[in-house]
Amino acid sequence: MAKYAKPLMRLIDELSSLPGIGGKSAQRLAFHILSMEEEDVEALAESIRSAKKSMRYCSVCGNLTDTDPCSICGDETRDKKSLCVVETPRDVAAMERIREYRGRYHVLHGCISPVDGIGPGDINIHSLLKRLQTEEVEEVIMATNPTIEGEATAMYIARLLKPAGLKVSRIAHGLPVGADLEYADEVTLSKSLENRKEL
Amino acid sequence: MAKYAKPLMRLIDELSSLPGIGGKSAQRLAFHILSMEEEDVEALAESIRSAKKSMRYCSVCGNLTDTDPCSICGDETRDKKSLCVVETPRDVAAMERIREYRGRYHVLHGCISPVDGIGPGDINIHSLLKRLQTEEVEEVIMATNPTIEGEATAMYIARLLKPAGLKVSRIAHGLPVGADLEYADEVTLSKSLENRKEL
Repeated sequence: MAKYAKPLMRLIDELSSLPGIGGKSAQRLAFHILSMEEEDVEALAESIRSAKKSMRYCSVCGNLTDTDPCSICGDETRDKKSLCVVETPRDVAAMERIREYRGRYHVLHGCISPVDGIGPGDINIHSLLKRLQTEEVEEVIMATNPTIEGEATAMYIARLLKPAGLKVSRIAHGLPVGADLEYADEVTLSKSLENRKEL
Repeated sequence: MAKYAKPLMRLIDELSSLPGIGGKSAQRLAFHILSMEEEDVEALAESIRSAKKSMRYCSVCGNLTDTDPCSICGDETRDKKSLCVVETPRDVAAMERIREYRGRYHVLHGCISPVDGIGPGDINIHSLLKRLQTEEVEEVIMATNPTIEGEATAMYIARLLKPAGLKVSRIAHGLPVGADLEYADEVTLSKSLENRKEL
């Protein structure tokens, strides 16, 4: 790494600490920022600061929001009978993008992962159980990731909820649309066979 | 794109306007920033702001610096007889990284490119000529990029300086170290043949 002047060095260091931004990208970004108009740089710095200041977690569902409750929890037109359980606020965004689900969400903020020392008590399961006691939910859709940890978390929560007579479902596994059978991994392919539907 | 809350949306917009950062990366970065400690976010925003405020171009060589003249121009131990002409401050950094060149620099801030409407008057050639009149330079090393525009710029400046009796040199073309002959492009390969050295 070349010896840059201190303020530039500091900027490069800060940028390269972000995920997916290595030393080279950080340098390129830093030089780009220096070449930007002063007001644009100000806007960038301010957007970072104000996003961090005004965004918080919804006290109901745990989603990222600048209002409390969040716009989804506060939306009376959304179906209160359906609750979709996801790992992160980004998963809420992904679900919202399909524009088909009209129920509500519950964000776990992680999944059970004994390897990383994350147990059931470390994610938002307690608040989920509390919601189910007061809200008129009929179906809980487990939309945790199709990973080992996501599966285990879905199973764990399903087992907790079933005795209460709730319907608990799991999003489907199978081949992604547009995928190539030849390149699909065995587990996905076997899941897609197992979950086949009659035409 | 999902409907995020406004401050988050604004942050994603700002981030995706940076070079090499698409919509998906911007979202990932934004969520990462929201998950950072408040003081780390503050440090990031401040590093952007202060780099832009304190970095300027050296009045002598045009390099990016937080002092004027820059640390290279102000370093009395550096060889005043050799002047390396580059396109951008990043090229100065690249040259400095090899730790072999002990002369000084002159940053053109671009290269002659008629296609983009950039003529000799739009880059720092005038200040270069002025420096050569007052400084005791003996050799000018043209280290513009090995592109058509970089070549043309090197040629143009060489022709301007030669009549003044200055030694003007050009960095070598050839195969990059560690490259594979089989995959080298024809122009590079023919250059590397043309510039062969006796062993």
